[in-house]
Amino acid sequence: MKQITILGSTGSIGVNAIKVVTANPEYYQIKYLTAGQNADKLIKQAIALKPKAVAIADDSKALQIENTLRPYSIEVLAGKNGILEVASRSDVDLVVNAIVGSAGLEPSIRALNTGKDMALSNKESLVMAGEIINELLKKNQLKLFPIDSEHSAIWQCLVGENPANIRKLILTGSGGPFRSLPNDQFADITPEQALRHPTWNMGKKISIDSATLMNKGLEIIEAYWLFHVPPENIEIVIHPQSIIHSMVEFVDGSIKAQLGLPDMKLPIQYALSYPGRFPVSWEVTNFAKIGQLTFEAPDFKKFPALQLAFDALHRAGTAPAILNIVNEFAVYAFLENKLSFMDIPGLVDRALSQLTIVDHPTLQDILEAEQCGREFVEQHVRQHN
Amino acid sequence: MKQITILGSTGSIGVNAIKVVTANPEYYQIKYLTAGQNADKLIKQAIALKPKAVAIADDSKALQIENTLRPYSIEVLAGKNGILEVASRSDVDLVVNAIVGSAGLEPSIRALNTGKDMALSNKESLVMAGEIINELLKKNQLKLFPIDSEHSAIWQCLVGENPANIRKLILTGSGGPFRSLPNDQFADITPEQALRHPTWNMGKKISIDSATLMNKGLEIIEAYWLFHVPPENIEIVIHPQSIIHSMVEFVDGSIKAQLGLPDMKLPIQYALSYPGRFPVSWEVTNFAKIGQLTFEAPDFKKFPALQLAFDALHRAGTAPAILNIVNEFAVYAFLENKLSFMDIPGLVDRALSQLTIVDHPTLQDILEAEQCGREFVEQHVRQHN
Repeated sequence: MKQITILGSTGSIGVNAIKVVTANPEYYQIKYLTAGQNADKLIKQAIALKPKAVAIADDSKALQIENTLRPYSIEVLAGKNGILEVASRSDVDLVVNAIVGSAGLEPSIRALNTGKDMALSNKESLVMAGEIINELLKKNQLKLFPIDSEHSAIWQCLVGENPANIRKLILTGSGGPFRSLPNDQFADITPEQALRHPTWNMGKKISIDSATLMNKGLEIIEAYWLFHVPPENIEIVIHPQSIIHSMVEFVDGSIKAQLGLPDMKLPIQYALSYPGRFPVSWEVTNFAKIGQLTFEAPDFKKFPALQLAFDALHRAGTAPAILNIVNEFAVYAFLENKLSFMDIPGLVDRALSQLTIVDHPTLQDILEAEQCGREFVEQHVRQHN
Repeated sequence: MKQITILGSTGSIGVNAIKVVTANPEYYQIKYLTAGQNADKLIKQAIALKPKAVAIADDSKALQIENTLRPYSIEVLAGKNGILEVASRSDVDLVVNAIVGSAGLEPSIRALNTGKDMALSNKESLVMAGEIINELLKKNQLKLFPIDSEHSAIWQCLVGENPANIRKLILTGSGGPFRSLPNDQFADITPEQALRHPTWNMGKKISIDSATLMNKGLEIIEAYWLFHVPPENIEIVIHPQSIIHSMVEFVDGSIKAQLGLPDMKLPIQYALSYPGRFPVSWEVTNFAKIGQLTFEAPDFKKFPALQLAFDALHRAGTAPAILNIVNEFAVYAFLENKLSFMDIPGLVDRALSQLTIVDHPTLQDILEAEQCGREFVEQHVRQHN
């Protein structure tokens, strides 16, 4: 029986992770849950799952949760420190980090410092602090299981293969809702349009990132830190049906792909069941019914986020952290109609050329870069609204 | 340095196997070569590769070969017994069986009896004597490496995976040259038309088998004996571009596929390099350039060979051997314009219902079934020509 912590349990990935855990009660038990702001959902999850403790990032919700959970004798922690405290609890076997955005970074570091294997949905942790995380994995001999569908695909393709035989990682992407939109209409894209993803049903932040292709950009950096393949050997292919989740090309020209219907439950479950696989009765992929899978090269002009990600990865240091944080706050500002769609990559581009980049950053350096990036966006938003 | 025997060295697969071996002289050395009838090519190969011995099935060519090879002190054997003698030589590490058709069966059994691992292109060996071959593999603790592109794909997808987690094998097939031909034109198909395969460049026998889809039928039976998956969990999907070479669906719904350009050099090389992979500079698969991969359900009415294969596999015993041998001689008769295209599955169907089927056959039983099947076709051809 594995004891599990789920950080970010009320988000899209967290909820699916709970589904996987509760579908396999003979293997897993939930010990800790944390959420950002959604107290009602956290309370419901806590009453259903009876964890040892829960934490909520939003201090103002703590009392409500405490009062409701008192009869269940479930410990309640609050604030950023409450989340970090739960991430550091060592009486579990695996920490699932499903926190959205840069808020996931410090909990990741805490869990790895505590010596816990981690199933990571929070790609921002690797984007911002890939070097530090890899050092921690090595030092504490820990395993990191990717939950992102593309990286889960690559991980599955590499099972039993010698990583030295990788020639190329081929990350597929649906191309988002604006793949076929003419260039001159990008300036007018609204949050409502951008939130309508063609194949994946996801949270708001990642939906916007999928529309700008910044999500694919972050995945390039994530893939680099997970699989240690040089950026020039990471290729993006647009594949609108989202059936092939990603591929690996080996030195002999053989390509392995992992496929399936677009449903995050599979990569989440695989991260938990690895190296095993659990039988499920989800809908089956029917190729004759699907009919065709199409592919095209990504349009680097319409979607500057892709090149920005490659550039940040090449520049290294705090550059990916700046890219990530400026993008994140630009996305939030876009969702509040305070920035235009094309301002998102535009601001990232300017931040990367204007802000100081620190090489081989410490966590403190990254948190400072995060602060700078956030202020950079806020300043821009103030000036233009 | 691995010492290699290539049985059937002058055919399409044999020639490619030699290319792989000679491209990697630090790993492999050719020790024995055998051919059916092509003395000139065998002589050229022998002079270039300096094997210890060669054998030719066609007795009448032995003297010519002996005379030409005398200055090189290469031993020359001849006739069926010569081939079997070479297959039994134990001073090698791996036997590549690239013989075409049922003639490959006895050499397979000889090599496995001698205790040699085998890279098997001759699917007929498994189709006809899968049970015997599996017993030999188990008894002598030998490895069998599939060369067929579909089975190599499945094998690659299974690397590092637990076979107990297989839910389904998905064998892809191009659908052959007559995929879109209207039903009423099948009666008039000529050998010339049937030999024009849309994606693979292959020998005559397998090209006709690809046109009737009997090749896919044989592959179903081959897959059964290689991967021990029940027939109802083996699915055929028509995929005209031949880029996805086959797939495995696991119990969790995850599908792994192996892809690449249609070139037999890759599966041949993989069978030799396994578990490693050799770097090559073959043309790379460019998905954006390929544009689309399409899929459709196979048409069991136009291509009765598929159902015949499933039926023979269910019937078991000598039924698959009868299917294979009747098909083989019907193909040869078709190539000589002595049978029509639809006579090929038609004769197989009749043979399966009319000829005696022996359960758990010995090799002798299979050879007798082979004789019966051959006579069955010959009799039919005599009556109708």
